[in-house]
Amino acid sequence: MAKDQRQVDSITNMDVDFTQWYTDVCKKAELIDYSSIKGMFIYRPYGYAIWENIQKELDARFKETGHENVYMPMLIPESLLQKEKDHVEGFAPECAWVTHGGTEKLEERYCIRPTSETLFCEHFKGVIQSHRDLPKLYNQWCSVLRWEKTSRPFLRHREFLWQEGHTMHATAQEAKEETQRMLNIYADFLENVLAMPVVKGQKTDKEKFNGAEATYTVECMMHDKKALQSGTSHYFGDGFAKAFDITFTGKDNQLHHPFQTSWGVSTRMIGGIIMTHGDDNGLVLPPRIAPIQVVIVPVAQHKPGVLEAAQDLVDRLKAVGVRVKMDDSDKAPGWKFAEYEMKGVPARIEIGPKDIEKGQCVVARRDNGEKAFVALDQLETAIPEMLDAIHAGLYEKAAKNLAEHTYAAHSLEEAKQLQEEKGGFIKTMWCGDLACEVAMKEKAGMTSRCIPFTQEHIDDVCPVCGKPAAKMVYWGIAY
Amino acid sequence: MAKDQRQVDSITNMDVDFTQWYTDVCKKAELIDYSSIKGMFIYRPYGYAIWENIQKELDARFKETGHENVYMPMLIPESLLQKEKDHVEGFAPECAWVTHGGTEKLEERYCIRPTSETLFCEHFKGVIQSHRDLPKLYNQWCSVLRWEKTSRPFLRHREFLWQEGHTMHATAQEAKEETQRMLNIYADFLENVLAMPVVKGQKTDKEKFNGAEATYTVECMMHDKKALQSGTSHYFGDGFAKAFDITFTGKDNQLHHPFQTSWGVSTRMIGGIIMTHGDDNGLVLPPRIAPIQVVIVPVAQHKPGVLEAAQDLVDRLKAVGVRVKMDDSDKAPGWKFAEYEMKGVPARIEIGPKDIEKGQCVVARRDNGEKAFVALDQLETAIPEMLDAIHAGLYEKAAKNLAEHTYAAHSLEEAKQLQEEKGGFIKTMWCGDLACEVAMKEKAGMTSRCIPFTQEHIDDVCPVCGKPAAKMVYWGIAY
Repeated sequence: MAKDQRQVDSITNMDVDFTQWYTDVCKKAELIDYSSIKGMFIYRPYGYAIWENIQKELDARFKETGHENVYMPMLIPESLLQKEKDHVEGFAPECAWVTHGGTEKLEERYCIRPTSETLFCEHFKGVIQSHRDLPKLYNQWCSVLRWEKTSRPFLRHREFLWQEGHTMHATAQEAKEETQRMLNIYADFLENVLAMPVVKGQKTDKEKFNGAEATYTVECMMHDKKALQSGTSHYFGDGFAKAFDITFTGKDNQLHHPFQTSWGVSTRMIGGIIMTHGDDNGLVLPPRIAPIQVVIVPVAQHKPGVLEAAQDLVDRLKAVGVRVKMDDSDKAPGWKFAEYEMKGVPARIEIGPKDIEKGQCVVARRDNGEKAFVALDQLETAIPEMLDAIHAGLYEKAAKNLAEHTYAAHSLEEAKQLQEEKGGFIKTMWCGDLACEVAMKEKAGMTSRCIPFTQEHIDDVCPVCGKPAAKMVYWGIAY
Repeated sequence: MAKDQRQVDSITNMDVDFTQWYTDVCKKAELIDYSSIKGMFIYRPYGYAIWENIQKELDARFKETGHENVYMPMLIPESLLQKEKDHVEGFAPECAWVTHGGTEKLEERYCIRPTSETLFCEHFKGVIQSHRDLPKLYNQWCSVLRWEKTSRPFLRHREFLWQEGHTMHATAQEAKEETQRMLNIYADFLENVLAMPVVKGQKTDKEKFNGAEATYTVECMMHDKKALQSGTSHYFGDGFAKAFDITFTGKDNQLHHPFQTSWGVSTRMIGGIIMTHGDDNGLVLPPRIAPIQVVIVPVAQHKPGVLEAAQDLVDRLKAVGVRVKMDDSDKAPGWKFAEYEMKGVPARIEIGPKDIEKGQCVVARRDNGEKAFVALDQLETAIPEMLDAIHAGLYEKAAKNLAEHTYAAHSLEEAKQLQEEKGGFIKTMWCGDLACEVAMKEKAGMTSRCIPFTQEHIDDVCPVCGKPAAKMVYWGIAY
């Protein structure tokens, strides 16, 4: 297959330098650009289009489950942020502070939201009076700021786009069910739309969200065998409600504090897509999220009938809901092939005079490079089927990577060695003590990813301290 | 018709105190709430749902005309903002300034974007090299901050939601066409979706956007006869391109500066909807933007078959694309009627045992209060037709308000008197001098709204200075 060598050569090989490969893909696929402020990125049209598709898919799932979108202010008065002690301790060190409005110095400084629990709580206090006002099931799409010292495209921004769900419930049971419902929506979305298999579990106390009673997570394994925390769902109990004095009159006519959750995913999911599916030719997009699912490249497009035939394919595929683009620019077909491979378009259709004569076209799959002839009259069934097959293939490959790089260890030394030699998720028992979790970080370089919902019995004791241990933990090196 | 008097009594009569009526509607219809920071508001679910529908409609029009969405950082370094002299002079006095990141004082302070021309220009400089890179047709949905001294829900926020289009073109002609294209999209959307008739025209130099060569506007008249600037489209020439040193190699192989536009509408459109269509019972929503187009209130819902019949109507209306909600809560029908009237739901269907027996339902229109029986088997055609009729009725009423309160004046004194006695748009000739525009403000309390594209000849001279005048201007009191 002809390729524009300059374009392909300019990407680092992923096995040589995964970090550089990742940055190359982000830039060469035109997903993102740097701005003049360190750690603040520009989402370019193609990168933003992926986010728009993520939003569309998730927003529909949120609404189906009764959630409503709202928009809170982006600024939080310092005094409001301080109302919940654990929360402010976690976030204050990375807040950006507004001190002046116009030419005047503010009486109190405001931080740009790093997350909005405090703002939602202040509003909830005003709108929740009775059990009839519950549950409140809110979600917000917005950007948040965290003044991080290091940054990487999509994975760690000072400003990033996300959604944050915030809900209030009459009972602890209902709130706990909500955290699981939303975690399951994230897991379903990751697996069935992004083709990213997940490990579902609970965070340890050390790793949970500032101010939460419990944090649940979906963890994914990247191509380089590092972990990406891809979505979290938090149960707050009534801690914030007490700190903010939020009460409601129950059916028993008594005052109660409601129970709270929050949950979120962000544009770091795009980083996850890149690092799960990408290859040395660039981005590989799962078909269900790809802004362009099929690109049509006319061959010998100056010949009579070619562009008309290609346009006919565009119209027919659009009619069956396929996101399709024709590139009839004057660039060479080889250049176009490389360009859309770099951009990870799942399938490419080539059609030229000979194909038209034979009533067929050539379809090339981005995931495995296979090319096949497809009869033109089969197009409306063949292409959607192929897109499903590509999704399944990507998922299977990622699931294999996850399964093959998850190892049981029976000692800290073995865990360390497995991580160093093989990488991936190392599963061990754990007694539950913070000291042993810290030791795993200090001696084996790994943090706890989660206590998986699906538990296994590996040993009877903690591999660090030797005390009895009933829980199994996944450890890894995380982005 | 039975009503919950407490609910209805709590709204101020619009002819008694329009300002208070407006605030009452914003709060009672649960569109918006106040936050702890002056001038920063909370968009509640019902208010945000209107914005989501506005976004959906406009975003589709932007994409149809080739625009792509992007997302730029929310912070602008002070040095970047200062690159275009007129621009910074206009915006610096109302910027919110970030001076600290985490615990560290920043070397340079950053302002939270009041608008993003400077950020787009910095990016354009990096991505525009050749005529093949043009046009760049970008749009951004985001929030912006302007540290205003006064505030009103939707009309003047310190933080508000908007879209800002930013485009770059190879020729001045193309850029000028773009400003008109987008202004026409705004006008079409306002008239055909929001049922708000517009006056299209050009702003005077005094009223144009900071840094623009020309600003075009769509001006609407509110129920109280004041003007609402509802959308603007700016032509920048190559001024920013020169300030930011953006160049491209043309087909002639020479370096050129590209020509730029920007255009935007914001959540103030929601204020416009309220003040154009609302009445003493609350909000009246144009059907094409209403989150709920039809509410179904079952009557005697405990009787067998009523809820099933109501649910059947829900399913059938959903199937033909109507946004419908059934309220089968245990509140009294009268309470429900008042509630959905307050929220401006365009049509209400009542269905009870007798209706079911007769194969009919009662449909009440929010705009004119008319009630009619509709045969159940006609529902799929009758309801969409009624929604179109409501749209047409609202538009017609607003167009009548606009036409009846637009007056020609031949002297400054007459203009002042007409504004004081009648209100509305006062049209006069104008010589083009700033001094005469200032005099109209100082002596008659009116600003120029626009120089309408549709010009009329009223006199030969300027009513202020008596010098020859070729242009007709609309004057008014604006929100």
